[in-house]
Amino acid sequence: MRFNKVLQNIKTYEAGKPIELVVREFGIAAEDVVKLASNENPIGTNPAIAKVIRSNADIAHLYPDDSMFELKEALSLKFGVEDENIIIGAGSDQVLEFISRAVLDADSSVLMSAVTFAMYEIYAKQMGAKIIRTASYEHKYDEFMEAYHMHRPKIIYICTPNNPTGDATSKEEVLKIINAVDNDTLVVVDGAYMEYAAAKDAKYAITPNDLLGYENAIYLGTFSKAHGLGGMRVGYGVAQDALIKELYKMRPPFNITTLSLFAAIEACKDNRFVEESIALHQDQIKRYEAFADEQGFKYIESYTNFITYLFDENMDSTKIADELLKRGVIIRNLASYGMNAIRITIGTAKQNDVFFKHFSEVTA
Amino acid sequence: MRFNKVLQNIKTYEAGKPIELVVREFGIAAEDVVKLASNENPIGTNPAIAKVIRSNADIAHLYPDDSMFELKEALSLKFGVEDENIIIGAGSDQVLEFISRAVLDADSSVLMSAVTFAMYEIYAKQMGAKIIRTASYEHKYDEFMEAYHMHRPKIIYICTPNNPTGDATSKEEVLKIINAVDNDTLVVVDGAYMEYAAAKDAKYAITPNDLLGYENAIYLGTFSKAHGLGGMRVGYGVAQDALIKELYKMRPPFNITTLSLFAAIEACKDNRFVEESIALHQDQIKRYEAFADEQGFKYIESYTNFITYLFDENMDSTKIADELLKRGVIIRNLASYGMNAIRITIGTAKQNDVFFKHFSEVTA
Repeated sequence: MRFNKVLQNIKTYEAGKPIELVVREFGIAAEDVVKLASNENPIGTNPAIAKVIRSNADIAHLYPDDSMFELKEALSLKFGVEDENIIIGAGSDQVLEFISRAVLDADSSVLMSAVTFAMYEIYAKQMGAKIIRTASYEHKYDEFMEAYHMHRPKIIYICTPNNPTGDATSKEEVLKIINAVDNDTLVVVDGAYMEYAAAKDAKYAITPNDLLGYENAIYLGTFSKAHGLGGMRVGYGVAQDALIKELYKMRPPFNITTLSLFAAIEACKDNRFVEESIALHQDQIKRYEAFADEQGFKYIESYTNFITYLFDENMDSTKIADELLKRGVIIRNLASYGMNAIRITIGTAKQNDVFFKHFSEVTA
Repeated sequence: MRFNKVLQNIKTYEAGKPIELVVREFGIAAEDVVKLASNENPIGTNPAIAKVIRSNADIAHLYPDDSMFELKEALSLKFGVEDENIIIGAGSDQVLEFISRAVLDADSSVLMSAVTFAMYEIYAKQMGAKIIRTASYEHKYDEFMEAYHMHRPKIIYICTPNNPTGDATSKEEVLKIINAVDNDTLVVVDGAYMEYAAAKDAKYAITPNDLLGYENAIYLGTFSKAHGLGGMRVGYGVAQDALIKELYKMRPPFNITTLSLFAAIEACKDNRFVEESIALHQDQIKRYEAFADEQGFKYIESYTNFITYLFDENMDSTKIADELLKRGVIIRNLASYGMNAIRITIGTAKQNDVFFKHFSEVTA
């Protein structure tokens, strides 16, 4: 068998370690494992949504309404846009995939910050496109413009707030970048963690509507984080209808499950859960900042539901992550991103206690 | 914005009409709608699986175990293969997508029967590949060989039993085709409805293991049909590990939901539900055959959970489908496949009563 040559350059993405693996490998009971690795909502599943899932479990044999009429209605109401501006994906991940496939080829390049969401690169490589990165993990206008003029990328990715670093780019800066590029470059504004940034400081708040005036911009959002539905795989893209129509050509039918559809519809009705999630987060993240100060290392100010600890040469992120794992604490080592750093999802008070205890022991 | 030129040739796939649409458009109460259009399991969801879904609804915020360790274990046990021979997709659909993307490019062609599963063409067109079809909807060795030697396709699709026609290709014929092509042509054996064919006549039974000796063959299966999990979107591909490894490069992380993973694991444990589904089906399909004989039109002998009624010039499938729809009976019109025919999922006795009643009225 001969395969597409693009496959030669693709490494399989390694997801955060699941609880099941720690149970299997280290013989730790599932209830003793603390997973702060995948930016899942520490409160758990919204009880109102869990109820909807339970009451629809008996129709798991039926395909979902592939028009996603009701979910699109709910989202268009939420964002003040039309149904035609919306495409639903199995996570915003899948919308990234649609974009990559609709726009890129082996002659094109994509531009992103030095450290950002791993899937931008993977989906671009699947199309054989060239990856260009700026020098900083922050999205700096000057760095983006220099690279833009040099490479004329087909896509610019702006992950704000940024994953896995936690910093954010202001609405003003994002619009400045969009205004500075021509219509042949699509600007993808990935707002997977936007709810946290918007709640922290209004100048970072970007809504789909802010981008709808541009034919070459798309906003991505997800139900996986603040809405607490990571396991259900539902995200969305919002853009002008001409762009959405093209992306639809790459969408497989029934791309989210029947239960995911009901869950997301319910999530649109209930903003209280999101507010509670953010309140818990804002309370608990202070402990992580104080802990870092106390222990004498740096962190990146976070606009997300996680925090990134930066280590100097006296500390080794891989060693720390491995030792924590053996103790049943799963966090994300950023060594594969070229950083001596770890990313920790802000958990519940109790989970965070466990993290602080083990981290102190491991680094003692 | 400029898009990939392959998009110019892609029409968006139109899924079977959902119950919600009939409710919205014709004001019929959901409980009065009979949907026999998407080959969903008429028994409903396996109660044991519905229970598993309900008891895991509270962990919808957690991403699934992306290694899918437990599901692969269950499947490898079921089929007598190794974990490394298996890839899981969001329906076998998604495995078709991985295959298409790993193997095809704009210079390649794919070969399939005259009337077969619509997604083969769509995924191939997304890669810019050329579509070659044999003259018959049945998979005839001579027709496939003639086209194979003329076009040297990168992929040959064998849908057995075939959707949307319902006929099957014997194991002997399938192996004859695989043995006749060289290693640069991948033969995809799509067994989405295999449970029904295998139960009807052993000579049509093909298992993943039958193909594992070939480096250029892959077996696809799904939990959507006999297992009754269409809404959960889980399917699989089984092939030699070298091929699976390449397909993995096109797999996005977390490509099935957390609840889908638990549901599929449970499905592997419980074959009684599948047996019951087949028993109901074998009982009820006789009624459809007798009805056609009685009414004086033809049908294709079915090895699947649906039946295809073939009409002559005195009957119009589009008109019949439209009239049935207005009465709340959803079936699949095959006009878009170039056939004056309808495909009806074999329902429960009660659903089938409703179909016969309305069909008789509509065609009176």
